[in-house]
This record gives sequence, C-alpha cells and structure tokens, in this order.
Amino acid sequence: MLKNPFFLNKGPFTLKKIFNECQIIFKTIDKKIVIEDVKDLKNSTNNDLTFFHSIRYKDLAINTKAKVCVTNNKLKKYLPDSCEKIIVDNILFTLAKITMLFYPNSTTDNLNLNLKFSDKAIPQKDKVICGKNVLIGVNVKIGINTFIGHNTILEDNVIVGDNCSIGSNVILRNCLIENNVHILDGCIIGKKGFGFIPDKVKNFRYPHIGYVHIKNNCEIGAGCTFDRGSLSNTIIGKNTFFDNQVHLAHNVEIGNNCIIAGQVGIAGSSIIGDNVMIGGQAGISGHLKIGNNVQIGGGSGVIKDIPDNCKVMGYPATEIRNFIKELRN
Amino acid sequence: MLKNPFFLNKGPFTLKKIFNECQIIFKTIDKKIVIEDVKDLKNSTNNDLTFFHSIRYKDLAINTKAKVCVTNNKLKKYLPDSCEKIIVDNILFTLAKITMLFYPNSTTDNLNLNLKFSDKAIPQKDKVICGKNVLIGVNVKIGINTFIGHNTILEDNVIVGDNCSIGSNVILRNCLIENNVHILDGCIIGKKGFGFIPDKVKNFRYPHIGYVHIKNNCEIGAGCTFDRGSLSNTIIGKNTFFDNQVHLAHNVEIGNNCIIAGQVGIAGSSIIGDNVMIGGQAGISGHLKIGNNVQIGGGSGVIKDIPDNCKVMGYPATEIRNFIKELRN
Amino acid sequence: MLKNPFFLNKGPFTLKKIFNECQIIFKTIDKKIVIEDVKDLKNSTNNDLTFFHSIRYKDLAINTKAKVCVTNNKLKKYLPDSCEKIIVDNILFTLAKITMLFYPNSTTDNLNLNLKFSDKAIPQKDKVICGKNVLIGVNVKIGINTFIGHNTILEDNVIVGDNCSIGSNVILRNCLIENNVHILDGCIIGKKGFGFIPDKVKNFRYPHIGYVHIKNNCEIGAGCTFDRGSLSNTIIGKNTFFDNQVHLAHNVEIGNNCIIAGQVGIAGSSIIGDNVMIGGQAGISGHLKIGNNVQIGGGSGVIKDIPDNCKVMGYPATEIRNFIKELRN
Repeated sequence: MLKNPFFLNKGPFTLKKIFNECQIIFKTIDKKIVIEDVKDLKNSTNNDLTFFHSIRYKDLAINTKAKVCVTNNKLKKYLPDSCEKIIVDNILFTLAKITMLFYPNSTTDNLNLNLKFSDKAIPQKDKVICGKNVLIGVNVKIGINTFIGHNTILEDNVIVGDNCSIGSNVILRNCLIENNVHILDGCIIGKKGFGFIPDKVKNFRYPHIGYVHIKNNCEIGAGCTFDRGSLSNTIIGKNTFFDNQVHLAHNVEIGNNCIIAGQVGIAGSSIIGDNVMIGGQAGISGHLKIGNNVQIGGGSGVIKDIPDNCKVMGYPATEIRNFIKELRN
Repeated sequence: MLKNPFFLNKGPFTLKKIFNECQIIFKTIDKKIVIEDVKDLKNSTNNDLTFFHSIRYKDLAINTKAKVCVTNNKLKKYLPDSCEKIIVDNILFTLAKITMLFYPNSTTDNLNLNLKFSDKAIPQKDKVICGKNVLIGVNVKIGINTFIGHNTILEDNVIVGDNCSIGSNVILRNCLIENNVHILDGCIIGKKGFGFIPDKVKNFRYPHIGYVHIKNNCEIGAGCTFDRGSLSNTIIGKNTFFDNQVHLAHNVEIGNNCIIAGQVGIAGSSIIGDNVMIGGQAGISGHLKIGNNVQIGGGSGVIKDIPDNCKVMGYPATEIRNFIKELRN
Repeated sequence: MLKNPFFLNKGPFTLKKIFNECQIIFKTIDKKIVIEDVKDLKNSTNNDLTFFHSIRYKDLAINTKAKVCVTNNKLKKYLPDSCEKIIVDNILFTLAKITMLFYPNSTTDNLNLNLKFSDKAIPQKDKVICGKNVLIGVNVKIGINTFIGHNTILEDNVIVGDNCSIGSNVILRNCLIENNVHILDGCIIGKKGFGFIPDKVKNFRYPHIGYVHIKNNCEIGAGCTFDRGSLSNTIIGKNTFFDNQVHLAHNVEIGNNCIIAGQVGIAGSSIIGDNVMIGGQAGISGHLKIGNNVQIGGGSGVIKDIPDNCKVMGYPATEIRNFIKELRN
C-alpha cells in the first residue's frame, strides 16, 4: 500500500501538532517527530503512525516498521525498540482522532451533489458502455469494454478495469476493481464500515480511509454489501465468486479462487485464505484467520481460527467428522 | 400515540355500523357504543376498540383502557370490567375487517403516481440538499441541513428531522425520523409487514396502519428492511446503530444505545431493551421480550425471553457459560 | 415445458456437429442423430439431449424420454435403453458446452442498452400504470391493471399477468409472472444462477436458459433475490408468500400456499412441497426434497430430505420433539 489513492492526506504533522489537536497528553516522547501518514501495523513505514490494540495482532506488532504506535501498557512490550510508543487508555478513540486530523473527510460518506450523467462524464473514446441514468462522481476511471447498468452510481473514488460488467442499481465508492470483474445488480460496495466507539449519548464514528480492492476475474452476486476498510483495505483475491446477499464487513481479506455462497456474512478484519469454499448462510466472526483450502458447511458459525485444509461445519463450527459423530450420539 | 399521523381514519363508527359492515354476529353488547379508533391494548383510550389474542399479552390486557376488545372465551377473563368484550372465533380476521373499515387504504401500499422530483416538491428555503432523481410523495416533511441521496424515493407519509442523511436508492414511506439520523444506501423502510391470515385460495392481508419511528442519532446500514407496524408502531430508540442487511419485522421495538450487527433478523412484535448488543446473523423469534444490557452472540437463535444483563449464545440461545460448558462435554 | 419462451434456440444440430463444436470424443454413437433442444431429465422429449450427473436423480433418469443423455460409466445403467448415452468425465462441463452451442447468449446477462422508458414502450390501451423512470426491454408483456413502481427495470424476457403490482427499484428479467402477484420494492428476479465449473485460473460459467415462474396470488417481500434456472426453471406455486430478503437459488421449486419468512435461503435445485411454512433465517441445502405440509422452525439448517407432514427445527434440522428432548438433556 503506497499513498492513499482516494482520501486526501492533510499531513505530515509533528507529534506536537497531533497531541495539541487531538488533546493527547503523553510526555515521554520526542514531540518533534514528523508523521507522514496513519497506517495499520503491516503497512506502516518508518514515517508512519500505527496502532496496536489486541494481542491477536502480536505477530504483526513484533515486525512493524512504524515510527510511532498508539498502544497500552500491557501490549507495548511486543513492539520493536525502533518504534516509539504512545500509551493511552482508549487506543481506538485516540487513533480515530489522529486519523481525522490527517483525513478530515473520511468519517462520513458525504453525498456528492455534483455527479454527472455518464454521457457527460465519460469520453466516448473510452469505449465504456453505459445504461440509462448512470451517475459518475469525481476521481472515477473506467476501463475499455466495460459495461455499466441502469441507475448505477459510481460516486467518488472508483477505478474499474477493462472488460468488467457492473449491473443495474449498483452503488460503488472507494473501490479499486481490476479486469474482467462482474458485479451484479443491487450491490453496494465501498461504503464506510460499521466501526465506531460506543457512547451512551452519541456513538463516535471512526474514520474509514481504506478501500475495497477486487482483483481480476471475480464475480459478485446480486444485493451484496462489501464495506471498505478503516485503516486497512477490504480485499478480494483473483477469481473469487460470491453468490447473492453476501455481507463483508470492513478490513476483510479473501484469497484467490474462493467460492462464497448466498447470504454468507464475514465480520470485520477476518482473513480468509485461497481456495476456500463457504456454504450458504455461514457466518464468520471478526478478527479470525481461515487457512487455505478450507471448506465451511452451509449455516455454520465460525468463532475461532481454522487451519489449512480443514472441513468444518456446525455452530460453533467444528471439524466435519466431529459434527457427524455428535449427530450419531 | 395520539391520532394516527399518516392514515386517514374514516371513523368514528357505532358498533352497529361496525357489526353490519364486517358481518360480525355477537348479541350481548350495546350496539350504540361509538368507536373512534382501533388501537393496540397499550395505546387504546376509552373511545377505542382493541384486540387481545394471545396469553403473552395478559399484562397489557389487565391494564387496557380500551372501551371494547375483540377476544375469545378463553382470554376474556383477563380484561377489566370497564372493557366490553366481543367474542369471536378468529380474532385477527375480525380485527382486520374492522381496521379496514376505519382505514380502507392500509392493506396495500398503493403506488403514488403523482410523486414529484425534489426540486418541485421541496421549497428552497428548507435547505434540504437532494441528489439527482429524488422523488417526493404527499405528506412529506424534511428538516433543515438534511441530505437525500440519488434515486431515493420518499413516497408518502414521511417526516425526516434536521441534520439527517438519507443515502441513495433508499425507499421510505410511513416513517417518522427524528434528528441526526443516518440511513444508508438501499434501505427500504416503512412498507407493510408480513402479516396476513393464511387461506388456501388467497391469503387475507391485514391492514398496517402503524409507522416506523426512528429516534435521534440512529444509523441504519445499507440494504436494511424495516417494516411498519400493523396496529402498533415499529420503534427504534435513540443512538441505536444497525449494520448492513438487517431485517426488522412489523411492531418490533428496540431501545436506546443498541448495536445490531449485519444480517440480524428480528421477527414481529419482539421488544428489545436498552444497551443491547446483537452479533451478526443472530435471529430473534416473534413476540419475545429481550431485557436491558443483554448481549446476544453472533449467529444465535433466540426463541424465548431474555432477562436483563444476560449474555446468551447458541441456537437455541442459552446463557453463554452453558454454551461454553456444552462445548467442553 | 414447451419451447423455451425466452432464449433463442440455434438448433437443431446433429451429434456430429455437436461433437465437433464442443470437442467431444465419444465413438460408439450414431452421429447422424438430430438434437432439437437441451432439457432436464424430466422435461426432455425424444428429440432432446439431457444430462444425468447424480444418483439423486435416479428416478427421473429411469423415466426420461430423452433421445440422448450425457452421463458417466457409473450412472449409465439407470437410463432406459431408448436413450443413447454419451459417456464423459466431466458431465457438467460437457453439458455446458453443448448448451452454449444451442443458446450462445445464455451465460452472461448482457446489458440491454436499448431499454425504453415505459411511456414509449407500453401502449396506453394496455392500462398498465407505471411510476417514474420505468425501463422496459425487449420481449416484455404486461397485463391489464398492473402497477409498476418507480425506477423499476423490466429488462428482457418478462411476462407479467393482470392485476399485479411490481414495486420500486425492482429488476426483472427472464420471468413468467401470472395474475395478482405482488413483488415488493428492491427485488431482483431472474438473473443467472450461481452455477459454474470451478477453475483455478478462471471459473467456467455454465449457461442459464431457464426462467423464474411465479404463479397466481403470490407475494414477494422487499429485497428478495430469486435466480432463474439453468436447464430447468425456478418455480413458485400459487398463493405462496415470501417475507423480505429471501434468497432462492437456481432451479428451486416451491409448491402452493407456502409461507416463507424473512432472510430464508434455499440452495440450488431443492424442491419444496405445498403448504410448507419456513421460519425466518432458515436455510435449506441444495438438491433436497421437502414434503407437503412441512413446518421448518426459524433459524433451522435443513441438510436432508424431509417427508410430508413433519415439523423440524435445529441445525441440522431434526423432528421438533427430538430438538426439544435434546434441550432437556
């Protein structure tokens, strides 16, 4: 991940500026340090600020290249010496405030009122084939021989490759779509994820500066909702097919050649390997790691990591031979 | 609940008129009684007719202020002396016929052909910001600084407060939306619920005269469907957030500060307390009462009432310590 | 099933032509045989080619009238002597190639760019009542007193009967809808099913030449997705009602007078009897047979056939008295 392609970074800022603007009090750090960007543990370079809030991400923390990390007293020991630590009580709240300083427009999906109808927005030489009433926002690029259905909105920050088809009544924003991808009718892809810090008076939404990246040869069924990432991206590998009404939360990563049946839901930040098959209505909890070549039976509820090559079923999902054994008891 | 804000009440009617029009035969009642409105047990005043069809609603029945109640021989003993009883075989069928007499246009959601594009329907001084192709029906009021996305339809009977955002491709009807509410793309809110009396030739739909009431500071994710109430309303408390693809059936009531994850479904007439968290894909059966501060794990199937402060999981959902104990056996 | 009403059949072809075009090598068959159409085991006549790929369809295979059948060495013995067998390794792949020869436009749902707005597409004498921005494709017929909502697209190959209502933001294609049917807002009906042959580089989609047939008096809730059949049709019986967000995969058949609650999903090729009630969020695996008068509890996961008159619940779904017994243990 290089420079954020879609959201405008207002930085760099010094820690002094960051601490002032975000009302952070933490003394034992050099306030002259300059931060260029806010990124996740994995993608940070030594000019970036990151965060580390859960022991689940210990391995990424150990190897992070980040200059500065927002964390707590319990977790700080896993971070490398090269990484300066900012110790706070509420890591996500502090991070949200910092991210909003860098990316002030990323908490809400502001309506773009200046969308243009496709005939005015897309030069004819681009050979894009559009249906009726197609609306195009800013920072939109569409490849050759790509079809876009009726009433579809490519709001802002959308790159679509060559030989794609986008159905009718689709809404895209903050998406990077490669070649030969087929997105069927009624999909909503790239909206902000369901991420916020609960508060009894008014929940505090945290920014979503990631995007949805869909690689070559994928197919997305009708009525799917894929949310964009918060700091990371939501990523779909090559040649992965989704049936109708699938829900992907923010930061989900799915590998290549997966087959995801109808009404599946995958909660935030879970990572799915290659060649994974997921049966209809199965659900996968957040922050899990599902290995390669895993098969998950329809209706299963996965609540822990699954190693490579397993077949699981049930709620909670267990190896399929255990599931069958239990049925016999 | 005062006067029905959206559906026109053709009453008052005497019981004589009601019995004639609805072909009700029941002799031991004063036919000169005048009925002003049809309401649920809780909201009826002593000018109203109500119904009592299930022992689940015994406590409401004991305390009802209704003038007249449609019920059966088994249940009538719970109603106060001040309430006249109409004893019938099929309570819901009789009630449906009476409701249709008062509200003849409430069984079907008739298409309003006279929608106007927003620039003609909304005075500029109202400071409502609308996208392209927004359609506005009758009895629609929109507050200041509210955004409405592209291709969105506010069909009939919609009140939206200040500082709200309504996404694109949204359809609203029969909704009362307070301030600072965010409804994301593709939601369908306020359609008639899935309520009808089964019949082998042609099911008999009963009227839906309720609305969907969404209180301050709520957020509704993409692709949600919330049905309006039949006699009662579907109500969402303050600062309650929903992820994508949630389904709420008619008459559901949800408290304040709840967090409802993706693909959750709540069946008709269930009541959810304050500060309730519901994990992804969980389902809640109809006519249940979920207490305050309850946590329901993702994928759970709740089929009985849950008291305050419980954490439940599983299908059927059970206290989380039992769920974990069973896993160990 | 007579002639395919929607897709243009480029046949008849001789087996010689079929073998050449589809690169099939199989010697012991008379290559002069003329094939008129490709159909399923049940609907084939003695001019048609069919396929038999799973022991589940043994009974249909024994009774097929097809002239020729694509199958494998294990299954061929069940086919009648009157049926010529083509033995191949990958039955579905071979069938897909043959079907594409007969119906070259059935693998993708090509965008029809020549849709017309309803006022130009529907003669006034037809008494069809249309909302704003309704788009009509080719091979569309609409009955009298039928309403069509705003922004709705009847793309290609749609027949709608009399006294129907189609909601707003609906997308229909390849549908045969009888009389007095109500399709609510946001439904997507008749798109190609989730059928393809997995391949590590690029999955191979197989053709979908079937349609969705919805019989008299049905109601389809908001946001439902019903896919059309591949070789067979997706069929909904009379007076069957669906709540919101239901997903039906290709080739599903549902009987008369069924009641299907919200968020139910039914996988491909399953057959549901008459008078079946399915609770919210229940899922039914593919290729199953559910009898008449069956009741399936909400949240259930059905993974085997269910005989007539059963009440089942649980995951996997079991007779309801067993489900309750297990709870007590």
